[in-house]
This record gives sequence, structure tokens and C-alpha cells, in this order.
Amino acid sequence: VNSELQTQTQKYRQLVSALIDKYLAKDKPESLYEPMRYALQGGGKMLRPTLALIACCAVGGNEKDALDAAAAIELAHNFTLVHDDIMDNDEMRRGRDTVYKKWDANVGILSGDALLVKAYEALNQVNSAYLPRTLKEFNQAILKVCEGQALDMEFESRQDVTLEEYYYMIDRKTARLFSLSCVTGAILGGGSETEIESLRTFGLELGRAFQIQDDLLDLLADQKTLGKDIGSDIQANKKTFLMLYIREHADEQTLLQLAGFQKKTRLTDEDIQWVIDVMEKVGAVDGAKNQVRDALADARAALEHLQDTESRHLLSAMLDTLEHRTF
Amino acid sequence: VNSELQTQTQKYRQLVSALIDKYLAKDKPESLYEPMRYALQGGGKMLRPTLALIACCAVGGNEKDALDAAAAIELAHNFTLVHDDIMDNDEMRRGRDTVYKKWDANVGILSGDALLVKAYEALNQVNSAYLPRTLKEFNQAILKVCEGQALDMEFESRQDVTLEEYYYMIDRKTARLFSLSCVTGAILGGGSETEIESLRTFGLELGRAFQIQDDLLDLLADQKTLGKDIGSDIQANKKTFLMLYIREHADEQTLLQLAGFQKKTRLTDEDIQWVIDVMEKVGAVDGAKNQVRDALADARAALEHLQDTESRHLLSAMLDTLEHRTF
Repeated sequence: VNSELQTQTQKYRQLVSALIDKYLAKDKPESLYEPMRYALQGGGKMLRPTLALIACCAVGGNEKDALDAAAAIELAHNFTLVHDDIMDNDEMRRGRDTVYKKWDANVGILSGDALLVKAYEALNQVNSAYLPRTLKEFNQAILKVCEGQALDMEFESRQDVTLEEYYYMIDRKTARLFSLSCVTGAILGGGSETEIESLRTFGLELGRAFQIQDDLLDLLADQKTLGKDIGSDIQANKKTFLMLYIREHADEQTLLQLAGFQKKTRLTDEDIQWVIDVMEKVGAVDGAKNQVRDALADARAALEHLQDTESRHLLSAMLDTLEHRTF
Repeated sequence: VNSELQTQTQKYRQLVSALIDKYLAKDKPESLYEPMRYALQGGGKMLRPTLALIACCAVGGNEKDALDAAAAIELAHNFTLVHDDIMDNDEMRRGRDTVYKKWDANVGILSGDALLVKAYEALNQVNSAYLPRTLKEFNQAILKVCEGQALDMEFESRQDVTLEEYYYMIDRKTARLFSLSCVTGAILGGGSETEIESLRTFGLELGRAFQIQDDLLDLLADQKTLGKDIGSDIQANKKTFLMLYIREHADEQTLLQLAGFQKKTRLTDEDIQWVIDVMEKVGAVDGAKNQVRDALADARAALEHLQDTESRHLLSAMLDTLEHRTF
């Protein structure tokens, strides 16, 4: 099934890429359209549109029915990335300069805006019988993503963020687009209400697992940069799962010492080793792994409400891949 | 007719305002929704939604049919203002701090994004039989507004912008939303193709007149600030109608002297008086007035394709008001 998944996802990536290229075809002025094309050429994993197409097939639809909506979701996802990178001062993405770094913040704002409008243009190509419902789901999801980003920014200036608030935030900022992808595919494939809602749950849980794993992998991916990342996360007061887990599980004295680190201009190697030790002691990494495992199990359970098809196997295989991913 | 116009526009402003308040009802997080509500509370003239409602009635529709779309257009208009103010570093609008000045650029980016999504939410409430067409017109128009803003920013770093390019730019940045308002109203009111296209032309020409007049009034509104405005326009290399008119009609020596002004850190009162004299000599103000008059005449001609109704009289009265407005 795994090699079948690779074949299908590659095929879907190509279909969606070609369609997105069509939507972003050369147009004037170049100062607007070139950054838009650049943003989409980073070669992401295209998980979201792939999910939409598989979900569509999983309810008995034809992948073509969801292709424009899949492109719309990928365009909208990249709109959020371009704007988030400005707000978060992120200069690198997928190994390249971000749009605002390569050009400037104004270009980032405007080309991001236009990407969102292009997403709606793609969405308008779906079967018009399904348009009102699809558009409603789409609007609600993008609004939730904005809410999630607003919360993420709020969190940076707060010391008392809880893990519960973190879950609430990632449900909006990350998981919602995964959920939207599955729901949209299911609607456009002519799925029943049960199928649509099962795929909504599947997407949401998969998205939760994806985000917590991302926080984890950011730290574990390259042991050489482990210290640097932890250091910058602490100093930027970033609310990652791991840092929040420490805050909820460490004793008061440890927390006081941690708070003190934020006032330091630079953390020493000893400071960083100390944080890693604390993380170990409170079991933060295991805590993250448990959360990922639970979410993936819930996603898997949701699949049981679907017919036993090749596409359902692919969705299941995606969970396997996610469970074992190391990048 | 003029007092009838005032009564109707006031009624329409209240209808649209109430609906927008509903769309922006209190929601979490406040850090996202408060700036959105703030942006809409400036008390603009609401020309665009008013046009949509009158256009709807002018083709025999009921104003209620276009109310959600009218709210959508006003929300989208304010999305462009919030983002443009960041890009243009404008700190004041309608006598109040702009969103990005009152909060910061990140809040401006995110609340602007969410306003655009809210616009699509409002648009999704139109009669679903008309949704695909209305959404298509809406997407195309917002994209053109983005293109116009990109051009406007490009122009700031160029010396050779022509009046023709200026017209091309304002057709996108300004006139297109007026045109969209009229077209949307006409579609939702069940207008014929002739009526829809006549109202498209009407809106476009009215929008052109509006923008050129805006450039003119910015300078003439307050004689005391005349010098200051001209000075800052020259130094910011702003491509207003008046400056471009000078560039196309003044002799080479005058242009060289004007170019020199951009290198000065500060213009003297004599410099500014000199520019005003040049403007007088080449007839820039009369040139602007002629353009406004021509556009209004074309708008008026477009109305002749509509049935002779009370609403058509209102549209005609709007042209009269515009012709004589001084603010």
C-alpha cells in the first residue's frame, strides 16, 4: 500500500501543480504575479490537496470533481504562509528566501492577498450545485486559520499559556485546513453526511498529529541544531508543545529558572543542556509522541465509517507514513 | 431628486451598516475582531454598497436581493484600505488612526485578511442561482484592485509614467469596485445583459471621475495645505493626475527643474509656488476638470439604456452630486 500511496500522491501533486500553474499563468503586472508564482514553486508536500482528492475518491467520487477545490486549498495555504512569514519575521521556507525576504513586506502583503483571491477563483470552478456549501466550509476554515494566527501572536506576549490553549490554537491554525481538505473532497465526491463528518474528524485529527509532530521534529530532526532551536524558542517565548509541556509539568523552581533565561541576551551551552535535561525529566518528548499517537488513532477510527475502498487504504497508509515520518 | 437621493442613501447606509455589524459581531479572539470592527466604524460614505442597491432596483429588483452582496463589497473595500494603508505608510484615514498605526502592521495584515474572508461570507448569502456569476465578477474585481495597487507602487519608483498608464491604474485600483457594485446589483436584481453591461459602464466611468476628482480635491479642498500637499506629492514621487499632467505638458527645462526638487530634503515656499504656477500655466486643473466632466457624461449616457425609473433618477442625481462635490 505504501508504494501505491507514493504513486498516487505523486500523480495528484502533478495534477494539482499543473492546474495551479494555469491559475497563476503569466499576467500583468509582473511585480504582482511573479512573487505569487514564486510562492507556489517551493515544492511543498501538497498534503492538503492530495487529501482532498483521496477523500473525494473515498466516497465514490471522481478525483476530477475535487481538483479545482484542491488547487484552491493549496493556493489558500500558500496565502497564509506568505502572510505568516511577514508576521513571524521568517526569512527562510523550504530552503529558499520567503517572499517578503526576497522582495519586501509590501510585495508579501499584496501577492498574498492576490493568492487568496486566486484560491476563490479556483473554488468557483466546482460543480455549482455544491458551490454554496463548499464556499461556506472554505470561508469558515480560512477565518479559523486567521483566528489561530491571531492567537499564536497573542501567545508570544503571554507567560501563562496552557496546553489546552495550544490545542485550541493549532486546531485553528493548522488542523482546520486538513479538515477542510477532507470535507471538501467528500462534499464534491457526493459523499453522505456520515462520510463527510467522518472525513472531517479524520482530517482534524491528522492535522493535530501533524502539528505536534512538527514541533517535535523541528527539535529532533538535526541533533546539531537542537541546542540552537531550543535556545531561540525559549528566548522568542515560542509556545511549542514541548515548551508548554515543561511549563505544565515542571516544579516551580525549574519554571523560575526558565523564566530567567528569557531575560538573558544569550544562552550558554550549559543553559541549553539544562533545558534538555528538564525536558527529559518531565517526559516532554514522550508526552508529544503520545499525543501524536492518540490523534492518529482517532483519525484511524474515523475511517471505519467509510466503505472499504482502495482510497480508504490510501488514507490509512497516510497515517502510517505520518506515524513514522522523520522529516 | 437630490433630497430624495439623500433620503435613500441614508437609508441604504443604515441597512448595510446593520448587516455589516451582524457579520462582524463579537467573536474571539478580540485581537482579531476588534481591529476589523474598528476599520468599518470610520463612517465612510458607503458609495459602493449604495450603488449596488440602487442598481438592483434600477433593473426591477428588490434592494433586499443585493443587500448581502453590498455588504460584501463594502467589507472588501475596507480590506483593501487596511492593507493599502500599511503599504503606503498612511497613518490617518477619515480623521482617525489607521489600523496599522493604532495597533501594528501584523494586526493590519491579519485583520485585513479576515475582512476579505468575511466579505466572501456575506457574498455566499446571495441567491445561489446567481452565486457563480456574482463570485466570478467579485474575484475578478478584487484581483484587478490588487493589480492596480501593484502598479501604483511600481509607479513610485518610475519617472516616465504616462497619463495613459495612470488611467489604466485607476481603472483597476478605484473604478473597478464601483463597476463591480453596479454589475452585482444588476445581476442580483435580475437585469438583462444590456442592463448589466450599461451599469458596468456607468460604474466604471463614475469611478474614473471619482478618482480624478479625488486627486484634484486633495489639493484644492484646503488652500492652507495646498503647498504642503504639493510638496509631499513631489517628494514622494506620487503619480497623481495633476503631477502627470504637468509631466506631459510642461517643457523640458521645467521638467528638469521639477526632477531636481525630488533630490531636495525640503522644498521652500518659493519652490512650491513655482509648481503651482506651472500647474496653472499648463492648465492641469482645467485638464482634470475636463476629464471628470467627460467621464460623468459617459456615465450619464450609459443610463439611457435603462428603463426610466425612480432609481435611474437617483443614479443620475449621484452624477450631479459628484459633479459638484467639494469634499
